[in-house]
Amino acid sequence: MRRALAASVEVHGSTSPNPAVGCVVLDRDGVVVGTGATAPPGGPHAERVALAEAGDRAAGGTAVVTLEPCNHTGRTPPCVDGLLEAGVARVHAAVADPNPVAAGGLDRLRAAGVAVTLGTLADEVARGPLRGWLHRQRTGRPHVTWKVATTLDGRVAAADGTSRWITGPAARATVHDLRRRMDAIVAGTGTVLTDDPALTARRPDGTLFDHQPLRVVVGHRDVPPGARLARTDEDGTAEVLHLRTRDPGEVLAELDHRTVVDVLLEGGPTLAGAFVAAGLVDRVLVHLAPALLGAGPHALGDAGVVTIADIVRLHVDEIHRAGDDVVIDARPAPGPTGPDVPQ
Amino acid sequence: MRRALAASVEVHGSTSPNPAVGCVVLDRDGVVVGTGATAPPGGPHAERVALAEAGDRAAGGTAVVTLEPCNHTGRTPPCVDGLLEAGVARVHAAVADPNPVAAGGLDRLRAAGVAVTLGTLADEVARGPLRGWLHRQRTGRPHVTWKVATTLDGRVAAADGTSRWITGPAARATVHDLRRRMDAIVAGTGTVLTDDPALTARRPDGTLFDHQPLRVVVGHRDVPPGARLARTDEDGTAEVLHLRTRDPGEVLAELDHRTVVDVLLEGGPTLAGAFVAAGLVDRVLVHLAPALLGAGPHALGDAGVVTIADIVRLHVDEIHRAGDDVVIDARPAPGPTGPDVPQ
Repeated sequence: MRRALAASVEVHGSTSPNPAVGCVVLDRDGVVVGTGATAPPGGPHAERVALAEAGDRAAGGTAVVTLEPCNHTGRTPPCVDGLLEAGVARVHAAVADPNPVAAGGLDRLRAAGVAVTLGTLADEVARGPLRGWLHRQRTGRPHVTWKVATTLDGRVAAADGTSRWITGPAARATVHDLRRRMDAIVAGTGTVLTDDPALTARRPDGTLFDHQPLRVVVGHRDVPPGARLARTDEDGTAEVLHLRTRDPGEVLAELDHRTVVDVLLEGGPTLAGAFVAAGLVDRVLVHLAPALLGAGPHALGDAGVVTIADIVRLHVDEIHRAGDDVVIDARPAPGPTGPDVPQ
Repeated sequence: MRRALAASVEVHGSTSPNPAVGCVVLDRDGVVVGTGATAPPGGPHAERVALAEAGDRAAGGTAVVTLEPCNHTGRTPPCVDGLLEAGVARVHAAVADPNPVAAGGLDRLRAAGVAVTLGTLADEVARGPLRGWLHRQRTGRPHVTWKVATTLDGRVAAADGTSRWITGPAARATVHDLRRRMDAIVAGTGTVLTDDPALTARRPDGTLFDHQPLRVVVGHRDVPPGARLARTDEDGTAEVLHLRTRDPGEVLAELDHRTVVDVLLEGGPTLAGAFVAAGLVDRVLVHLAPALLGAGPHALGDAGVVTIADIVRLHVDEIHRAGDDVVIDARPAPGPTGPDVPQ
């Protein structure tokens, strides 16, 4: 399953609105004979890719797949058919398909005499490339990751507005890797006017990754024609969408309409506060620089919290170092103090 | 050495202005026959305590001690004499004594034919109970730990001023354990007026630890007679010292005069900003609650930083979890961007 998960990580960012699935096929002796991951929309699913590589050797063998194989015909025929045609004897899936149209794959395999298990590495897979897709299936809206680079005292820029750079090169490289996995990046007009970001996904040498997310600017003010965002658009790197609203619900509805699955919210404090207040942040990724400023703009603006009883509690999934910086990966805590579903 | 270090941790907080040292004595077969730690001022040093327990069995044996044994007569005779009288054959010390009056212990032992090593676990010991004392020996001023409990977005209270509790019981318990290791706790009058803290070191059941630090209030405003701080003083728990200044240098000079070694700076943002600006914070201990407020007072007030080039960089020594919270233990980074000596 780790190999299947790793295969899905490779394609994460290129499959939306389809899920980034990984699949490994083993022959009857347990030797890996095929590895596949979801192709871009319209192309084959992970199981089909792995089975094609395995050929005849899949017969009597095992398929290990991160998501329950689909049981419906979309732009491609059901993966369950492919597994049955190949004569696979066992299927191990990590997580079930929450989509009622596509689900039922494991049941059909079981009815056809295939040995089936569900749940191997389920938590890890659900936190991986499938996270946004599973979220959208369950809630009907895109998954929102709020990423912020802040000092230990919660400042995102110095008093004079300068902010390059609070975090180090290692943390900044992980942001670009995250961007290329996303379908859309959202920033407020305030951030565009203050920081003039390109919001592209770049390698450490400055070159652009193949996949670029849709860049979304939110707010009523105009984006100046000379903004980096507008200029990189002219280069053909990625589309820029300007939504003249401050309502996070409206932003997500429009993005959902465009079949966006994974949204990265990158600034600024006002917009982030609005998303937090609306209960529309699903993952909080804090890049914490071990540094102090003592003045300057805050990481988070008004989120509707007035008194300590209403504090927005998070659950920390992971803490790790990125160079000199500390990365805290968290999500809204379940329960009355943490919004975790749209309100 | 780990046993010697553990013995010194036990007494940390009760030995100032003497260093909290630990010592283990082994007989000629390597069996532990004595363990000791520094007694309160006027009492015996760690080596004397361990040698007394070992008795005749120390002859031909080994002494393991966290600090180079002293070579001078203060209120007690030199530890080097005790080791020589006991006939110890080997002495392993972790860190050298930077005090020119007391140093030279290892040289004298070596000259007397004792096998001597220096440096075992030196970094760990220097970050342990000896840290404040070593700092004061080197710089001539007390060691200052700034501790702050903050949300991920750098707030120490909600918009209405409520702050109980941002961090959980595990993190709060570590604060009380830290307080009992300290010689003094410093808070500004603003914090006293806003939060009305007792600034005592208490066990989780609310009872007081035996050692209570000197409580120091800094600022020009009066402490109201009804403040918890004033009331607990009447209970005889600890002295309260009111310094009518806002100058961190003056505060530390007065505390040094009172032979304070370890200072805990606990609030609020204005005073912490003044200490950071003066380069007088030696350790930054952030208790980070995985939570968001979006408004309310900041962790750190004006520290004289206007632009990003002047950001105060820290080096992270350790990150660990305390219940749901994250503890970041850091110090000013060496180099031009981080003040690490008084200016």
